[in-house]
Amino acid sequence: MEPVTVGVDFGTLSARALVVRTADGAELGTAVVPYRHGVMDAVLVTPSREIPLPPNWALQDPRDYLDALKTVIPAALADAGAVPEQAVGLGVDFTTCTLLPTRPDGFPLCLEPRFENEPHAWVKLWKHHASQPYADRINAVAAERGESWPERYGGKVSSEWMFPKILETLTEAPEVYEEAYTFIDAADWIVWLLTGCETRNSCIAGYKALWCGGYPSEDFFRALDPRMEHIVRDKLAAPVLSVGTLAGELTEQGAALCGLASGTAVSVGHTDAHVVAPALKIARPGVMLDLVGTSSTMLVSSESYVPVPGVCGIVKDGILPGLWGYEAGLGCVGDAFGWFERNCLSPELVREAESRELSPLAVLTERIAETEPGESGVMALNWWNGNRNPLGDGDLSGLFVGLTLTTTPEDMFRALVESTAFGTRIIIENLRSHGVAVDEFVASGGISRKSPPMMQIWADVIGMDIQIAGTKEGPAKGSAVYAAYAAGAGRGGYGTLAEAADHMGTGPIRTYRPDPARKEAYDALYRDYLTLFDYFGRGGNDVMKRLLEMKKKARGKKS
Amino acid sequence: MEPVTVGVDFGTLSARALVVRTADGAELGTAVVPYRHGVMDAVLVTPSREIPLPPNWALQDPRDYLDALKTVIPAALADAGAVPEQAVGLGVDFTTCTLLPTRPDGFPLCLEPRFENEPHAWVKLWKHHASQPYADRINAVAAERGESWPERYGGKVSSEWMFPKILETLTEAPEVYEEAYTFIDAADWIVWLLTGCETRNSCIAGYKALWCGGYPSEDFFRALDPRMEHIVRDKLAAPVLSVGTLAGELTEQGAALCGLASGTAVSVGHTDAHVVAPALKIARPGVMLDLVGTSSTMLVSSESYVPVPGVCGIVKDGILPGLWGYEAGLGCVGDAFGWFERNCLSPELVREAESRELSPLAVLTERIAETEPGESGVMALNWWNGNRNPLGDGDLSGLFVGLTLTTTPEDMFRALVESTAFGTRIIIENLRSHGVAVDEFVASGGISRKSPPMMQIWADVIGMDIQIAGTKEGPAKGSAVYAAYAAGAGRGGYGTLAEAADHMGTGPIRTYRPDPARKEAYDALYRDYLTLFDYFGRGGNDVMKRLLEMKKKARGKKS
Repeated sequence: MEPVTVGVDFGTLSARALVVRTADGAELGTAVVPYRHGVMDAVLVTPSREIPLPPNWALQDPRDYLDALKTVIPAALADAGAVPEQAVGLGVDFTTCTLLPTRPDGFPLCLEPRFENEPHAWVKLWKHHASQPYADRINAVAAERGESWPERYGGKVSSEWMFPKILETLTEAPEVYEEAYTFIDAADWIVWLLTGCETRNSCIAGYKALWCGGYPSEDFFRALDPRMEHIVRDKLAAPVLSVGTLAGELTEQGAALCGLASGTAVSVGHTDAHVVAPALKIARPGVMLDLVGTSSTMLVSSESYVPVPGVCGIVKDGILPGLWGYEAGLGCVGDAFGWFERNCLSPELVREAESRELSPLAVLTERIAETEPGESGVMALNWWNGNRNPLGDGDLSGLFVGLTLTTTPEDMFRALVESTAFGTRIIIENLRSHGVAVDEFVASGGISRKSPPMMQIWADVIGMDIQIAGTKEGPAKGSAVYAAYAAGAGRGGYGTLAEAADHMGTGPIRTYRPDPARKEAYDALYRDYLTLFDYFGRGGNDVMKRLLEMKKKARGKKS
Repeated sequence: MEPVTVGVDFGTLSARALVVRTADGAELGTAVVPYRHGVMDAVLVTPSREIPLPPNWALQDPRDYLDALKTVIPAALADAGAVPEQAVGLGVDFTTCTLLPTRPDGFPLCLEPRFENEPHAWVKLWKHHASQPYADRINAVAAERGESWPERYGGKVSSEWMFPKILETLTEAPEVYEEAYTFIDAADWIVWLLTGCETRNSCIAGYKALWCGGYPSEDFFRALDPRMEHIVRDKLAAPVLSVGTLAGELTEQGAALCGLASGTAVSVGHTDAHVVAPALKIARPGVMLDLVGTSSTMLVSSESYVPVPGVCGIVKDGILPGLWGYEAGLGCVGDAFGWFERNCLSPELVREAESRELSPLAVLTERIAETEPGESGVMALNWWNGNRNPLGDGDLSGLFVGLTLTTTPEDMFRALVESTAFGTRIIIENLRSHGVAVDEFVASGGISRKSPPMMQIWADVIGMDIQIAGTKEGPAKGSAVYAAYAAGAGRGGYGTLAEAADHMGTGPIRTYRPDPARKEAYDALYRDYLTLFDYFGRGGNDVMKRLLEMKKKARGKKS
């Protein structure tokens, strides 16, 4: 019986399990189970009622996670032709911060009849944004008090993080806050149910809960709301363990929840993005992992902490154990391309896509492969969803310049792709200029595999080799690698994460190398991109904000 | 027999005749005849050969004008149920500067066998742009010598004008230059053939041939090329008469060319744009006529001359007799909208347009009627074809700012329409700030009639009533009004142009009035438009020029 580990990736709409051979990382079997209630963003379905939700809400039902867990691992084992006894470790990653309040025994408050019709008692999904006013309040109080921790978060707490969601609950449903034994990320909650051990992990605590050896002070929380003064002592007392640490072993109850054998090692919970690194053999400083999807998440580790303005987070043990993890990213990549194919086409291109049964995006991608840097005559600022890093400004917007009567949709699309590359280059140069090395670049995610011309443009713009991830199973595989590390060498796993990553991770399937002539052309364009970036993004001309204000006013009047 | 006059409008592709009752301006009959050879911009078809033409050439065959003339007036008379003897006057307008070299008897050099295969001997159509290097040379020499006349032309001679076309011929086909008795605009040439009197008119001479009481000096022409020193004395000696002046009467030969009776009054030739004013009852200072088509031509008259930078031309008797005519305009209006509907659509909009058998532009126009100023969140700089006025810079390009993931094609289209309105407002304010009154605004051309939401936006932005021209026959009708003025009161016409315009011109069919609240919103947006205008257009950031340079280089390498 060869040892395997199992990684389970809880996404936004489904859970995915992967069975991996610890010896060589072979991906033996997989299964996916969707959540019954999906994302509840318009109506909350409770056991007794259907409750309409205000805008920007996004809830989930915790039973969906357990239902998925119960079937997805056995299905993956069956697909692998493996038996539970082969599994030496289990790892779990989740969307984060996806938060729920529980009783001391881990039972979700929302499943108690007295709270089932209180939306704040349910799981607030990562993209629940109704907490924005509370994020604003946290930022204001932190600024007033001159707190030091905002430096690690580019100066700003996001509405997606833990304390805005908790402060929202305290304010709008104080009885839920009072009754909650704890507020816990679903990743840690699942690990708790499986092992009986309540833990937190350094990745989620660091990036989503302002933790750095400890949470913010009681003074800070009291300033926020006197009722929160002792929140850390009273509700967040569980230990925060470094990523990859053994959280505990499967209890009998835990084993029943997931279909593996009791005694199996379980690693602490993890974030679905950051967990990908070791799946791609990334276990050392200076290797940037870029998860390119609707937006991009750029992750790189370093031996030391240096303050870098304009990042999302700088967290000890945040990506890899023992290292400082730096996270930054673009506010939209795939989302911008999706916008483009829905809004910027010629009738001719629409018809070609239809007749060839391709998406407009596929046709656009073909066409930009035929042109050279500068040939479009168009430049874009890629801020369709604001600028996440380094400006952290959601009120910025996209721009095209250079349009003429002969400009084509593919000219504009190429400019848009180039602008995402320029935006990526700015983030890399920002990190480097503050002393964080970025020596290698690994791209993962659908766009990195499906769009060779885009990745070539990125390589030419950033002037680095771009290695394309060799597996599509990044998150589940990363959880499986961490599970092998948590299990340890003694029971069929590995003694260090580096060893686990080296044996079980997957190397690149392809590398895009920058072309020197194209790189030179892009260096010239990049200077112009930077000038526009500063002019529109750093106060030279705040026209984007004024346009947004006017839009809000005009639309407000109508509704 | 009630008196009529006939106006003939020679366009780019066809000639159009209109029979108008002098008493009340009733449009009694019309006819159109296309030119057999159309525009020859790829191949010149001569009696013996087909000669490929270089890029940017545009020639016509003068026989096409005569063939059209021979049939179009009789056809219009027949349509009107009128006889030639009713016609008391004939007026002719033409695209300008559409230039040909002739013998002393008016015979075109290109129809002589020895010149028929020399492209420079043929009619150079207004949009023949191969003469650009010669325009550059004229501008350089004028600047070197500190000539005063460029002040009347926004500092720049266009390649479309007369002397660049002549200098090109002198340089590339000196034998044509030597042999030419004169170079003459087709408008004046037709009048010459009809009346036997060789005249020039103040509109074409003023706007297209640098004339202002006289042409530039012999010193200037000698500096340009010693062989041109005496060009005015030797080849341009014919008198320049004010617009609307009687050029002569139809000779027997002239009568045979057009089918009217000999002795009929013929007014001097005219430009197809400027001739429109009296057709719309415009015969006094301060009324701006805006011909809104692929681009826009904005014409307003004033009692006095003041230097205004950033106009196309300031010409005495240029639009109306006795007044100084100021011309300016936008480099593209309809052209930009046409670009938009070919390049910036959603698949959904393409399908809706197809299923309703509408153009995408018609659907976009419907949709922008449903939104308010500022609601799009988008702003554009309308420079898809450069900026004609006030910047006179063809190397500028279009811009969109304010794009987000929820921006729609109609949001962008509304911004584009608004930008043409802002551009129009800048021209009006530029004229006013230099002392040229603009008290009324009359719009003519297809876009002004077909697009109520656009015209409402224009009215809201410029803060003036926009009167929409009541006739589609602007040029031919204008020629007919001028013919009645040239004929004079004694033979069934009018003693003053004002009387002729008042009796025969057509008032507006509709007036768009600015809405105060929308005007206020646009005032705010206009401030931002001006900031972007100066930043990108006046040297704040020359990124548009650099993008154009790179584009030319990249495309040059490929071809």
